[in-house]
Amino acid sequence: MSEDRVIRLLASGGHSRSDVVLGIGDDGAVLAPPPGRQLVSVLDTLNEGVHFPPGMDAAAVGHRALAVNLSDLAAMGAEPAWASLSLSLPETDSKWVESFAAGFHGLADQWDVSLVGGDTVRGPLSVSVHLVGFVDPGAALTRSGALEGDLVYVTGWPGEAMAGLRVLESGGSISSPRLERRFVRPDPRVGEGLALRGLATAAIDLSDGLGTDLQRLAVASGVRISIRVEDLPVSREIADIFGAASALELTICGGDDYELAFTVPPQQEDRLLRLAEHWSCDLTRIGRAEAGEGLAFTREGQAYPVDMSRAWRHFGEQT
Amino acid sequence: MSEDRVIRLLASGGHSRSDVVLGIGDDGAVLAPPPGRQLVSVLDTLNEGVHFPPGMDAAAVGHRALAVNLSDLAAMGAEPAWASLSLSLPETDSKWVESFAAGFHGLADQWDVSLVGGDTVRGPLSVSVHLVGFVDPGAALTRSGALEGDLVYVTGWPGEAMAGLRVLESGGSISSPRLERRFVRPDPRVGEGLALRGLATAAIDLSDGLGTDLQRLAVASGVRISIRVEDLPVSREIADIFGAASALELTICGGDDYELAFTVPPQQEDRLLRLAEHWSCDLTRIGRAEAGEGLAFTREGQAYPVDMSRAWRHFGEQT
Repeated sequence: MSEDRVIRLLASGGHSRSDVVLGIGDDGAVLAPPPGRQLVSVLDTLNEGVHFPPGMDAAAVGHRALAVNLSDLAAMGAEPAWASLSLSLPETDSKWVESFAAGFHGLADQWDVSLVGGDTVRGPLSVSVHLVGFVDPGAALTRSGALEGDLVYVTGWPGEAMAGLRVLESGGSISSPRLERRFVRPDPRVGEGLALRGLATAAIDLSDGLGTDLQRLAVASGVRISIRVEDLPVSREIADIFGAASALELTICGGDDYELAFTVPPQQEDRLLRLAEHWSCDLTRIGRAEAGEGLAFTREGQAYPVDMSRAWRHFGEQT
Repeated sequence: MSEDRVIRLLASGGHSRSDVVLGIGDDGAVLAPPPGRQLVSVLDTLNEGVHFPPGMDAAAVGHRALAVNLSDLAAMGAEPAWASLSLSLPETDSKWVESFAAGFHGLADQWDVSLVGGDTVRGPLSVSVHLVGFVDPGAALTRSGALEGDLVYVTGWPGEAMAGLRVLESGGSISSPRLERRFVRPDPRVGEGLALRGLATAAIDLSDGLGTDLQRLAVASGVRISIRVEDLPVSREIADIFGAASALELTICGGDDYELAFTVPPQQEDRLLRLAEHWSCDLTRIGRAEAGEGLAFTREGQAYPVDMSRAWRHFGEQT
């Protein structure tokens, strides 16, 4: 199958937004940005054997490649709009590409995202997605706005995605459709991120794990983030399958969750909780921003040591 | 070296445009598009061993990854602005990353491009660059505007890049700094593309070879592109090293040139030639758009058969 045919396969099935002046098929796409708004731009790559297990279902690869980028837009409070896709394939198999496209477009349609362009090349299986979203000027959520006294919240059940990967890698000896789905088909918290505009002081998505990502938020904001271990949402499903100690470790150190962690001033908590009644995911208060720096864990008022070296990291080295 | 350190290395050294509201370091970049203009979006990936030889100089990889995307913007007549970079590295070596960044930023600075974000991941060496440029509404050049009677032009010396790759792969047994440079450090025709706005009826960049890309332009425009073989700019340097037959084949079928091919109405030819006096590259009229379809070659008025199956293609199959 030629590059042109792969591109036609990917282009078909997607829907087109009215602000796409010229979509797939030329040297570039032509896009009309909404007057008076700012753009949020994100780009993330998934490599087979690094970010997902070899042989993972093509539809799941397509879904996931878009989901991780939607999650970055969610953390910025941006409305998704335009996607570009670069797909490296060792060989082309039209069934694989069709299934990949179905996974990608299924999620794209849900969030009104148009695939506007990209590239297909030969190489080890790898997917790069660039995504553009819109925000009002000054309204983007960032990592750097947390203030002393703010409350720290997290959506969903961090750690379930990494536990899902272990389930997947067990080759059938462990069964948990819930955990597996959390790795294979993450639900990016786009609606929740949009709801947090004008409410959260800082936000980040948990791509590298709750500990690593909250540490980044603390550093960017110039505060200390203090987490109460007893308040962490530890998944009962993980605990039942892998035991309580593993469950806590996965909650703190597991990556690939694509949940949101964010800070809100205490006086906004009621408003947040009213909004969250309509969310499709759980929401848990896990700590507070304080004077100081870095990330600290406490349990029953005592410092609680966490071995962050077990956190998931690219290149597997200490920062 | 951690992902955070690689990102800091890549971020340092680049310059920042005033329309970059928030650059590298958060979940996404925040960008302020110029009021009343449209955006052109392009995304291209280079894989080691597919798009460049293993072990190629890191600065050249950085230059080339940006150049191929600048070339796409050039073909659309867009002013380059914002780049995002995803870099897959099998291992991180800070010297390699520094050299890569120098190659990338050297070209970025030349065209006022800011690196606004991206991703570094573990995996086989691969570089994806997304680039955004600006055009006035309706002013983007496309592949689809060529009209019967238009003249067909090409910049530079197509085939020299592919010949340069052969020089590079000869491991020193063939020497040609000129050809080697054309593969390793292509000069995207950004200024020429900007000059063609309001003048060219259609344009395309020669990433996959003059024959393949002109065929695409012909199909998109619904015309036949007829090329006079005796008018093709056949590089003397290629002919001297590889012989005249190889030189013609490389001119038609060689990829990776990142020259521009375009069409202009005959009444605009004088204006084009006056503009081109200030260009840094040569310009050659090679044919004409006619009624009909596809691509045709003639030599001394007779049909000239070209074996397009030798054209460079992703996945190496027939379209």
